[in-house]
Amino acid sequence: MKIRIYYEDTDAGGIVYHSNYIKYCERARSEVFFSNGIIPQDMKSGFVVAHLEADYLQAAKLGDILEVSTHPIEIKKSYVTLYQEIKKESKVIFKMKIKVAYVDNGKVSKIPKNLLKIVESMI
Amino acid sequence: MKIRIYYEDTDAGGIVYHSNYIKYCERARSEVFFSNGIIPQDMKSGFVVAHLEADYLQAAKLGDILEVSTHPIEIKKSYVTLYQEIKKESKVIFKMKIKVAYVDNGKVSKIPKNLLKIVESMI
Amino acid sequence: MKIRIYYEDTDAGGIVYHSNYIKYCERARSEVFFSNGIIPQDMKSGFVVAHLEADYLQAAKLGDILEVSTHPIEIKKSYVTLYQEIKKESKVIFKMKIKVAYVDNGKVSKIPKNLLKIVESMI
Amino acid sequence: MKIRIYYEDTDAGGIVYHSNYIKYCERARSEVFFSNGIIPQDMKSGFVVAHLEADYLQAAKLGDILEVSTHPIEIKKSYVTLYQEIKKESKVIFKMKIKVAYVDNGKVSKIPKNLLKIVESMI
Repeated sequence: MKIRIYYEDTDAGGIVYHSNYIKYCERARSEVFFSNGIIPQDMKSGFVVAHLEADYLQAAKLGDILEVSTHPIEIKKSYVTLYQEIKKESKVIFKMKIKVAYVDNGKVSKIPKNLLKIVESMI
Repeated sequence: MKIRIYYEDTDAGGIVYHSNYIKYCERARSEVFFSNGIIPQDMKSGFVVAHLEADYLQAAKLGDILEVSTHPIEIKKSYVTLYQEIKKESKVIFKMKIKVAYVDNGKVSKIPKNLLKIVESMI
Repeated sequence: MKIRIYYEDTDAGGIVYHSNYIKYCERARSEVFFSNGIIPQDMKSGFVVAHLEADYLQAAKLGDILEVSTHPIEIKKSYVTLYQEIKKESKVIFKMKIKVAYVDNGKVSKIPKNLLKIVESMI
Repeated sequence: MKIRIYYEDTDAGGIVYHSNYIKYCERARSEVFFSNGIIPQDMKSGFVVAHLEADYLQAAKLGDILEVSTHPIEIKKSYVTLYQEIKKESKVIFKMKIKVAYVDNGKVSKIPKNLLKIVESMI
């Protein structure tokens, strides 16, 4: 998944605002589901972030084109841990391990089969 | 209502990103309702933006403290037009006329009395 | 230019937050310059927003794919007024007239020829 | 430092978008410097994020008032590691360990004395 950096993404320091890389990773995760026809409507269930660890290796700038990749590193009954990487011209500039929980009606629940299949397809 | 400008508000041009002033105005409108105990829960109804006209007079920068004021200029059965102004050190740097419609279950509807009272209190 | 709507674009009302449409229009304007090799580095000069008028016709939702188009309607020495439209499945859901000024070292200045050419190419 | 949750902070899931908590923590860090009169102007130097680890314990909603606290846990020559916590009604809903590097002209550098003093004052 490619991301172009626009003005909205940058801050007065002239580089991409740090929490935006985490947004790009979410775009990439969502895109996998959206492009498989899974676009949540009722919002009573879905994945929520439980934990994340991120390393900032190099800054991106206005006009840059970044590439986000996503791979599951652990799949449990109700949780998935993913490894996501953002590259700029084939160099890794940001990497993150993120654990998401499947929540249904406010409770951590078993991941439905159709979603699990999509997660597994990311390997 | 006072707004401090943080890194997230600025862009690589070193000034506040233009659409953010429109967000500050929404914060000010919402704050009037929130501070009156009106915090929407079900989201099936509420005000949505129909039209806006904005003038950008001067740019705000990192660390600035801005002040937003809000006044209704026309109150109709289902619509309210407000005038909002953003000042920096008592100088107007942004002004906007915004028309919002009250929508219930997807249809433009009569503004409920308790909300109308709050709108009228802004005069 | 196509825009996919992600979680970050929506709000608790379940629809795209109103000021985001204005961001999408800026992405489209910037993309015209970026794809022509104009990516500002020093930030001492550039276009800044002077005035805008926007009509919100229909709301976009999570997962929607929108399309933004941009056309100049008036080109002056230091100002350009553009008409921008956002469509969802070929239906216009948002339209905006936006006037931008060319600013150099804090002063409204004559638009440089190479930028003017790009603006004219949008007709 | 108190943060009110507005529409812009929430997403279609009805809760605060996950990367926004990281923005609130940045607001709190910046506020410590701003309120001490340190508002960067030239942007050639400053703190940049190197690493962060975040735990999401509970979700915040529209209208909530959150409180962010910040404490240094390790202060080195060029790096500072901070512990930040976000509370909602005195309950911790988010916590983060964040390591920032002081960068001058693109190179990791010794933290200037006046900034170090402010960091130490957060203990």
